[in-house]
Amino acid sequence: MTDNPDEFAAHNARMKRVQAARERIQARHTLERGLLIVHTGNGKGKSSSAFGMAIRSLGWGMKVGIVQYVKGSWETGEKNFFQANPELLTFEVMGDGFTWDTQDRAQDIASARAAWERSKARILDPAYDFIILDELNIVLRNDTLPIDEIVAFLRERPLTKHICITGRNARPELLEIADLVTEFAEVKHPFKAGFKAQKGVEY
Amino acid sequence: MTDNPDEFAAHNARMKRVQAARERIQARHTLERGLLIVHTGNGKGKSSSAFGMAIRSLGWGMKVGIVQYVKGSWETGEKNFFQANPELLTFEVMGDGFTWDTQDRAQDIASARAAWERSKARILDPAYDFIILDELNIVLRNDTLPIDEIVAFLRERPLTKHICITGRNARPELLEIADLVTEFAEVKHPFKAGFKAQKGVEY
Repeated sequence: MTDNPDEFAAHNARMKRVQAARERIQARHTLERGLLIVHTGNGKGKSSSAFGMAIRSLGWGMKVGIVQYVKGSWETGEKNFFQANPELLTFEVMGDGFTWDTQDRAQDIASARAAWERSKARILDPAYDFIILDELNIVLRNDTLPIDEIVAFLRERPLTKHICITGRNARPELLEIADLVTEFAEVKHPFKAGFKAQKGVEY
Repeated sequence: MTDNPDEFAAHNARMKRVQAARERIQARHTLERGLLIVHTGNGKGKSSSAFGMAIRSLGWGMKVGIVQYVKGSWETGEKNFFQANPELLTFEVMGDGFTWDTQDRAQDIASARAAWERSKARILDPAYDFIILDELNIVLRNDTLPIDEIVAFLRERPLTKHICITGRNARPELLEIADLVTEFAEVKHPFKAGFKAQKGVEY
């Protein structure tokens, strides 16, 4: 596009038609209820996108509950931030770290079960408007928690709040009942160029 | 997997080997510098993932600057949250809304230029550790800003901070110089099932 005023006028007229079309489309979208959201795929950003939605919710005065299933006891930026602001939301790290770090299947199962019981309590608590179950997909993939039980509960969930579940390798049973699914696909990753995980980006 | 103790022991031994392999791989990744990050694709979560990285950075005491190129004057959760916490970061909405809403190409160009000048100042300011240029891809795609000028500047950027650029239809010239690229792919979207955009999720 040049600086030609005729082209500008044509652009402006075209955008007026686009706007009218968009308004007609939006008028047809009237449903509103709590969504079941899944972030999956091998790319970066599944958890950080959920944390960004937490920020959006907090900006509207909605109460947020986060349960982390896998992240262990190590320090992360999100833990530092959210735990320093307990008046904003609850942030509970229930996982013991990756299963190759715990090397204890019985402990993995016990931790995942405790995290799921806490998750159910948060989902059923009317005080909460947005619930993040971070890395739940990982423990479902490993059969550390039984997929049938989790799906049965989520089917009957209260529709007054949003729930976001993250982690690669989401189970098809979960995708089937979800309202919003995004796949995060890795296009280029600095780890492969020799970079280490860095503060603010990876943790 | 069953509750059989032999299977548990085999799992635990296998995980010990996985852990050792991971440690060997990680020892080879030693590079550390500011990354150029691009979030693109037609799926949801590009901006919210950037806001989640902002939270991670804030949790480490890093200073964050956000410049929004397209979002207009309407209220959003992230704007409410971040602007209510100005001690945490700077959040500047420089865009006038979508081009079909402004219907004024000359104004679009002037706004994008002002946003880019502000972005450069933030990138060059040593006080900032993480810069988000939200929806810059949109104005590059429209040629509202010249891609060559932006790429030339980013090539010579200070390597002491991370920069995250969001928006669908990222230009190939930008992907080429980026360190980390994630494509957000839409798998299932509630809009298509008749839902309207909802607080905390979409805005």
